[in-house]
Amino acid sequence: MAHPVSPLAPKSYPELAAIAGVSFATAEAGIKYKNRTDVLLVSFEPGTTVAGVLTRSKCSSAAVDWCRKNLSAGTARALVVNSGNANAFTGVKGRESVRLTADIAAKAVGCAPSEIFLASTGVIGEPLDAGKFAGVLDQMATRLADAPWMEPARAIMTTDTFPKLAGATAEIDGVTVSISGIAKGSGMIAPDMATMLSFVFTDAPLAAPVLQALLARHVKTSFNAITVDSDTSTSDTLLAFATGKADGIEPITDIADPRAEIVGAALADVLFDLAIQVVRDGEGATKQVTVTVEGAVSDESAFRIAKSIADSPLVKTAIAGEDANWGRVVMAVGKAGEPADRDKLSIRFGDILVARDGERAGSYDEAATSAYMRGEELELTVGLGLGEGRATVYTCDLTHGYITINGDYRS
Amino acid sequence: MAHPVSPLAPKSYPELAAIAGVSFATAEAGIKYKNRTDVLLVSFEPGTTVAGVLTRSKCSSAAVDWCRKNLSAGTARALVVNSGNANAFTGVKGRESVRLTADIAAKAVGCAPSEIFLASTGVIGEPLDAGKFAGVLDQMATRLADAPWMEPARAIMTTDTFPKLAGATAEIDGVTVSISGIAKGSGMIAPDMATMLSFVFTDAPLAAPVLQALLARHVKTSFNAITVDSDTSTSDTLLAFATGKADGIEPITDIADPRAEIVGAALADVLFDLAIQVVRDGEGATKQVTVTVEGAVSDESAFRIAKSIADSPLVKTAIAGEDANWGRVVMAVGKAGEPADRDKLSIRFGDILVARDGERAGSYDEAATSAYMRGEELELTVGLGLGEGRATVYTCDLTHGYITINGDYRS
Repeated sequence: MAHPVSPLAPKSYPELAAIAGVSFATAEAGIKYKNRTDVLLVSFEPGTTVAGVLTRSKCSSAAVDWCRKNLSAGTARALVVNSGNANAFTGVKGRESVRLTADIAAKAVGCAPSEIFLASTGVIGEPLDAGKFAGVLDQMATRLADAPWMEPARAIMTTDTFPKLAGATAEIDGVTVSISGIAKGSGMIAPDMATMLSFVFTDAPLAAPVLQALLARHVKTSFNAITVDSDTSTSDTLLAFATGKADGIEPITDIADPRAEIVGAALADVLFDLAIQVVRDGEGATKQVTVTVEGAVSDESAFRIAKSIADSPLVKTAIAGEDANWGRVVMAVGKAGEPADRDKLSIRFGDILVARDGERAGSYDEAATSAYMRGEELELTVGLGLGEGRATVYTCDLTHGYITINGDYRS
Repeated sequence: MAHPVSPLAPKSYPELAAIAGVSFATAEAGIKYKNRTDVLLVSFEPGTTVAGVLTRSKCSSAAVDWCRKNLSAGTARALVVNSGNANAFTGVKGRESVRLTADIAAKAVGCAPSEIFLASTGVIGEPLDAGKFAGVLDQMATRLADAPWMEPARAIMTTDTFPKLAGATAEIDGVTVSISGIAKGSGMIAPDMATMLSFVFTDAPLAAPVLQALLARHVKTSFNAITVDSDTSTSDTLLAFATGKADGIEPITDIADPRAEIVGAALADVLFDLAIQVVRDGEGATKQVTVTVEGAVSDESAFRIAKSIADSPLVKTAIAGEDANWGRVVMAVGKAGEPADRDKLSIRFGDILVARDGERAGSYDEAATSAYMRGEELELTVGLGLGEGRATVYTCDLTHGYITINGDYRS
């Protein structure tokens, strides 16, 4: 937390809409940090549906396992998040800690433990003392409010240098529904989500299967299309909650309902906005990089090549050095193992064509390219010339800041 | 080349044996570097066999394509290596440059161009002017010698901070045969070899298919078991040459010949020694790390998990910070996508058990572990408890030095 704020931090933060049926409180439980909030309790009115996308790590945390088990029922009454300790790889103690926390929260808000959703982020491998939540959650339940969203956004931060908030609205049946979302994440970020927590709340009346389908669809081009360091966390959690408290809207129970698409578009906006904020707060980041691969044999192939480029330490250090080192981009294309023909490759930085047909473009202008590379938001486009496959991955550069932050984190 | 010498550099260099039938010269062709040799010509007597393992990059360099085409014939009369320019991603010009260089070399040593083997290393994407070799190779051919091996080892360096040499001998039919090898490589190093060049020479009489079989077998546990930064180069080349000039040995024409195994063991020693030197010269490296995974469902699965750990930026920065952050090791196991059971995992740093059965070991001693982490050579062992699969991958830590070297290389 003592690290300098990312130069890519937003200049201002949005005032997110209150969501009918959602109220929250934060507190200082002293789990790891001093003098800052580290616990979030969000309470939902009865009838709230829930959907989630969780880490694919084979060593997922106890809280992730808990959420996975309870998602199938599709209903939620509260969310408890703590920062500072991920309660991951804590064995039997970790499972007990989760159960105990859910029990404490269920008593505090008055529901079944299975309606409590949990997320923990921070150090892996240290036992989390659930006893710390005992008095705290009870007390939090007495002062729930529906604003300001900045508070929950701050309480879930770890190495983040700025809070992440995004909101959107959509109109269905002549009624405006709102989506308010928060996220945290800065390192250990890679597709399939990494140490990334995000919670999205809406008053739209979405049945759980519809909410799940929308979330699964739009996570692909948002949280699963970002990478900071190729490392995937044990604790990734994206949860969406729909209270259905927007007045005068019939429940949306079928994904084919045209209203689902309308809410879905707003949800996609919120997820994408939050995902980009995570990249812009990538540990040590000084530049945001959008890597697009087109002309691949399939979208999947394009995605794997884009990820190979976005994950490459040599590409990322070159970008940090403001060097349009397209040779390293070629290297990263080649190592992806996907179909590629060296002699058909083209590479652009922004609108500048630097290579085509497998060699440096005749029109290449070093000075113009160097000027472009000094920018804060860079676009790198690779054309493979093989087919119609296309994908975009978002990342940041790799700098001394990353080493400084991660070379001395636990101790 | 201005970077400080790796703290892991050897304290002294071996005096490699001259190999009957092999002679060489180096020169300053001024391809990129000033005041240092950057071209190597190695000449072989007629009858020399050759075998090779080349990059799997889909964007391999023109020189790699050339070698691949000519390896099938199995005979070699000369090897030309240049440093400073990889002649990769240089399109038609690159192919012409390779053809021209082979022509020049073939005239200089008196053989067919198809018997010339080529390797280039350095910047990708810059055209290589073969004209620079014209007078140089002719002149080099007039002053070939069989010692000292330090000269070719130095001529092929790029960001390497020390030359890499290794030798071994074996006795077959009562005769001592020698193997002398050199390598270069420092960054863009990952299994499947990366910007890694290595050339190994022996006077043993090995038929080309036998040499190829031995090379393929022993590259798995040497050059293909190392990683510096997970990046794989377009130019990886490992070539082995056997002159057969050791007196009084019948040719070894069958891999089942017991003498093949004897020479193979010596070859394995040389390859392993060179591969470890590459890791120890990893860009910015301050520690050598041996990652062993055991108890996996198969050797292949163990290898993929070991590589996931060895490639993880978070594991590597933790090691740089002398932090036994086994939580990050768990993360890297989990992200590998291979079968793993969190609650059966055990992790050791050296002989110190830090985690077992999915949680911190009861015996864990922070002070002892910290003391161990201050060492220069670290061993990290993960037990999965699932089967008999086992693999080891060798890597180094990730430090500010890596960022400094790669953030400003091309320009």
